Amino acid sequence: MNYKMVIQYDGSRFYGWEHQPGQEMTIQGKLESVLSAMAGESVEVIGAGRTDAGVHARGMVANAKFDVGKSVDEIRDYLNQYLPDDICVREVRIAADGFHSRYKAQGKTYQYTCYVGETKPVFDRKYVHVLEGMPNIDAMKEAASYLLGSHDFASFCGNPKMKKSTVRMVDKIDIERSGDYLRLTYHGSGFLQYMVRILTGTLLEVGFGKRDPKSIPELIEAKNRSLAGPTAPAKGLCLLKVDY
Amino acid sequence: MNYKMVIQYDGSRFYGWEHQPGQEMTIQGKLESVLSAMAGESVEVIGAGRTDAGVHARGMVANAKFDVGKSVDEIRDYLNQYLPDDICVREVRIAADGFHSRYKAQGKTYQYTCYVGETKPVFDRKYVHVLEGMPNIDAMKEAASYLLGSHDFASFCGNPKMKKSTVRMVDKIDIERSGDYLRLTYHGSGFLQYMVRILTGTLLEVGFGKRDPKSIPELIEAKNRSLAGPTAPAKGLCLLKVDY
Repeated sequence: MNYKMVIQYDGSRFYGWEHQPGQEMTIQGKLESVLSAMAGESVEVIGAGRTDAGVHARGMVANAKFDVGKSVDEIRDYLNQYLPDDICVREVRIAADGFHSRYKAQGKTYQYTCYVGETKPVFDRKYVHVLEGMPNIDAMKEAASYLLGSHDFASFCGNPKMKKSTVRMVDKIDIERSGDYLRLTYHGSGFLQYMVRILTGTLLEVGFGKRDPKSIPELIEAKNRSLAGPTAPAKGLCLLKVDY
Repeated sequence: MNYKMVIQYDGSRFYGWEHQPGQEMTIQGKLESVLSAMAGESVEVIGAGRTDAGVHARGMVANAKFDVGKSVDEIRDYLNQYLPDDICVREVRIAADGFHSRYKAQGKTYQYTCYVGETKPVFDRKYVHVLEGMPNIDAMKEAASYLLGSHDFASFCGNPKMKKSTVRMVDKIDIERSGDYLRLTYHGSGFLQYMVRILTGTLLEVGFGKRDPKSIPELIEAKNRSLAGPTAPAKGLCLLKVDY
């Protein structure tokens, strides 16, 4: 049976989603070990994407094929009982045999959260990036408008050895302040490695007057990572949703 | 000068608010050491109450007398820079000389948060108590109604050696479910040691059918801690506000 799962995690303690040789602390690794114990056979978990070390998720989607004499809710409860406190399976559903969480993904929503209050975030300090001062949101919105659409995002790709296409389509970048928080919400067909964090680092440079919003088209054109802004810290980023 | 401070903290790592001999990890101790370093003299911090080990606060109030050539915002920023990540001073104000955060407190609001969802809390797992199943809220509300007013709360006092009066006035106990959370909000003139957690443990017993709501008046009358419910875990409790 092919199962689709929706997964939430606090990425703080983990070396990212993806399995790594000799590295126990990955979300995929934890899921595979609990699922394999449950199914009594080696189970492979396929994630919709690979979140980096320290990045969080509220709606990661994964699928896995196994057979076990349990209902979907029993599977969910078993997983939640044996997974650590910082990983939760929100939902398990039976999927079509051909469902592949990565190949079938149509789009993804990521949110980057900055703290812009006068003091410090306490209860959510592991999930936000603290800014020194308040960026100019209008300038950031102008810069973001140039990023929308289908582009070669090589300037915003953290992997210098990327051999496949670096063209992606981004159809939404919302930048909104709500009280002590500034949230950047991205929706697109898919994102390159570190892309959301490099976009955020670049937009924040615009917000702080270090970069002209009008320079963005040129930056895209350059296809050169070293010309973009810094990679914003992982802890502010969260994968909210995967569309199918 | 006498300063009034509003303080927020994640109590998880701490042995409570109050200074303890040989125990570095108290909120009061951290505040006193940073304030003393700033003022260049030993500064005593007086808190509105003593939260227990593991209990959180969003609106603890404290006062301290010292002299330093800084504005209130500069004092706040200095404290936040040197305090650990899990303690934040939200506000510093100049108070009247006679202001004493404990003696002048007129009332306090505490909130106890339970998770009642089907899976697990991930991002706020350190701030909620996970319940197995859903309690009967109407029964809990009925039980709570008997607790309102001025009573001798000796049955709900965690300190067996309490020599002072155990009479307190509780004028509000709101019990509300919102999505995956069940929140119990208490307001009163003041609370005895562990009182909010013992009240919560007792109300949850009512909610789970282990105790009749109508038995509460008798329990108050008994003035016997051993007849009340268990002390609910510290991590679900948060001091929201102190009134003056």
